[in-house]
Amino acid sequence: MAATESRPEPRLEPRPVGPHPHEGDPVFDLHVGGKLETVSTVALVGRDDLSKAYTPGVARVCEAIAADPAMTQHYTWVPNTVAVVTDGTAVLGLGDIGPAAAMPVMEGKAVLFKQFGGVDAVPICLDTTDTEEIIETVARLAPSFGGVNLEDISAPRCFEIEDRLKEMLDIPVFHDDQHGTAVVALAALKGALRLTGRDIGSIRVVISGAGAAGVAVGKILLEAGVRDLAITDRKGVLHSSRSDLTPVKRAVAEVTADLTGRQGSLAEVLDGADVYIGVSGGTVPEEDVARMAEGCVIFGLANPTPEVLPEVAHRYARVVATGRSDFPNQINNVLAFPGIFRGAFDTRATAITEGMKLAAADALADLVGDDLAEDFIIPSPFDPRVGPAVATAVAEAARRDGVARR
Amino acid sequence: MAATESRPEPRLEPRPVGPHPHEGDPVFDLHVGGKLETVSTVALVGRDDLSKAYTPGVARVCEAIAADPAMTQHYTWVPNTVAVVTDGTAVLGLGDIGPAAAMPVMEGKAVLFKQFGGVDAVPICLDTTDTEEIIETVARLAPSFGGVNLEDISAPRCFEIEDRLKEMLDIPVFHDDQHGTAVVALAALKGALRLTGRDIGSIRVVISGAGAAGVAVGKILLEAGVRDLAITDRKGVLHSSRSDLTPVKRAVAEVTADLTGRQGSLAEVLDGADVYIGVSGGTVPEEDVARMAEGCVIFGLANPTPEVLPEVAHRYARVVATGRSDFPNQINNVLAFPGIFRGAFDTRATAITEGMKLAAADALADLVGDDLAEDFIIPSPFDPRVGPAVATAVAEAARRDGVARR
Repeated sequence: MAATESRPEPRLEPRPVGPHPHEGDPVFDLHVGGKLETVSTVALVGRDDLSKAYTPGVARVCEAIAADPAMTQHYTWVPNTVAVVTDGTAVLGLGDIGPAAAMPVMEGKAVLFKQFGGVDAVPICLDTTDTEEIIETVARLAPSFGGVNLEDISAPRCFEIEDRLKEMLDIPVFHDDQHGTAVVALAALKGALRLTGRDIGSIRVVISGAGAAGVAVGKILLEAGVRDLAITDRKGVLHSSRSDLTPVKRAVAEVTADLTGRQGSLAEVLDGADVYIGVSGGTVPEEDVARMAEGCVIFGLANPTPEVLPEVAHRYARVVATGRSDFPNQINNVLAFPGIFRGAFDTRATAITEGMKLAAADALADLVGDDLAEDFIIPSPFDPRVGPAVATAVAEAARRDGVARR
Repeated sequence: MAATESRPEPRLEPRPVGPHPHEGDPVFDLHVGGKLETVSTVALVGRDDLSKAYTPGVARVCEAIAADPAMTQHYTWVPNTVAVVTDGTAVLGLGDIGPAAAMPVMEGKAVLFKQFGGVDAVPICLDTTDTEEIIETVARLAPSFGGVNLEDISAPRCFEIEDRLKEMLDIPVFHDDQHGTAVVALAALKGALRLTGRDIGSIRVVISGAGAAGVAVGKILLEAGVRDLAITDRKGVLHSSRSDLTPVKRAVAEVTADLTGRQGSLAEVLDGADVYIGVSGGTVPEEDVARMAEGCVIFGLANPTPEVLPEVAHRYARVVATGRSDFPNQINNVLAFPGIFRGAFDTRATAITEGMKLAAADALADLVGDDLAEDFIIPSPFDPRVGPAVATAVAEAARRDGVARR
């Protein structure tokens, strides 16, 4: 931004929040007063500044946008700002804790957007869980934002909300719990396959969990070339012969286990599988893990307790990944969403396409390079190359896919 | 905020916006990239920071809020953040230019909130002008914000939208075009009356314009003790004998001209009036101004062209004020809204009461002190005492009025 050099100090600081109920707890201490603020990019030192940034000068900028809405891209913060929208129904592993309690996560997400992607982000916690109300509310907010990141909205509503908003709006709409997880899991899997000398077209993959993440991981794996994939919910493999499937699960079944004829329990399909990806939050018994193929790959992504604990997984698998920062190979969405939105915003993309997600996964996988090892299949979130590499790859894909406006 | 000392630089700056269509125009140059950004108040340097500000640590903060929603006040940015909400129907003097074109004004407002009140502010431009849709949308956003500043929404919808939201929500809802203008106009009038030795209970006041500002200015003047007040629209004085009044205008008539029996045109009621306040955007003919009382007070607040140009007003009035920064005695809302929200937020007020607005006006009037003069009836927006003085007075009034939660 051209005008950021002279950042003025606020004239009147917010009052200190004072003593708080969890003093001395480092996590709560860090959260006092929240984790986000809005800051002016322009200095208002005197009347002349005020008359340019506000009335009467600002009127000419408004008129320019009224005459040509594309001027929004030049003269507002909109094209660099994402709304981080939740209804608080599926927050972390905590479930439906409501919009107020979801705010610390949404603020954290906003902080990550800025720090790792240079994207301004506003947390929006909605006081409704109704699908139609969420859709219409986000649509009404759309002129205020350059993109929408849906977050922690429970399945299956999250699928319809994202699909409908993508149809309605000409800005990127991205449900990170689905696609962020999918991009990073695919990138990690690419590393694991390279390490274990497997070809993506000939592996047998099992995903447990048919919620937002499971469906999206399954979808991106198919796009990346996986041909033998079974996704399980609590009742076993999603297969069209089951009469209890939701429309989303039925659609998943048709493009996964229906093609191979695989049916049965998680234990049954794990037998001989090359790759297991857990996004379910359950626990896989060790005896089932023990029947996977030799040198297999196990991603237990549930937080805080992976479906297969690393110490168990390592007895049978060559490559192990989790969602946790205290083990190697963390499948962390922050590797993807900041760079994906950076790339989308840099090209004024009207959407985030499948091609842009695949490009993001490739960029992450490529960054591992020659450092590839059992405990290093995916870059660190603090590798400064990550955001720019993902952004560049996503921007190129946006142009290839015809959704870039510059 | 406790954690603001170490503000990290973004890891990946937004791309420069590049050449723009109005290069070299200082107003447009200043607006390139927008005027606002979101910034983290916490440093994320390594995995340990990430695990406190985001998963897994943040989960404990979410759980604390889920168990006790009052914890929102300690551990989120919500209690210090206002939504600046518009539908773009009455932007400055430009009228209905739509939500996208309204954004530069809303960003400017957000900048002023922060600079003059230490209040974080998020511009929200809504893609609807339907009263019910605006109300329900803002209500759904409410968990995300500590207050709502309605802005540039046309009358009469603005009255119902504010009233209904005030009933529904337990956070401050404030339509600045009404109440900000009213507070500052009252403060300036107090200065003018002190200077001209008039008593507020015995003056005769005429307001032209029965929109958002006119109705609110009239209301606060009555609360402050004015007993002879006529408000005019294009057809003359609002009086119950007229058959063309909207419900809002009828209610205004009943508490203003109905009490004194004044009727007729603006020219007729100006004859002998002590105070004229223009919030209409029209022009008052000089011959009508000439018939006001000797040593009268004229506030022509329309922007950019006052209802009575200062050079004309000074031929008849002792005190003249406008809405413009290039004349003395600017009636500028920025004197009020940042301090009003600061005071409301400092006390966790559930509403902004009439008492809080009157207290804000008194605080502004008091700041003029011994410097009172024909060309100095109201402080400068750049007087650093303004925000704190208004905030302190408003906080005290919140406690008196029983709306403070601390």
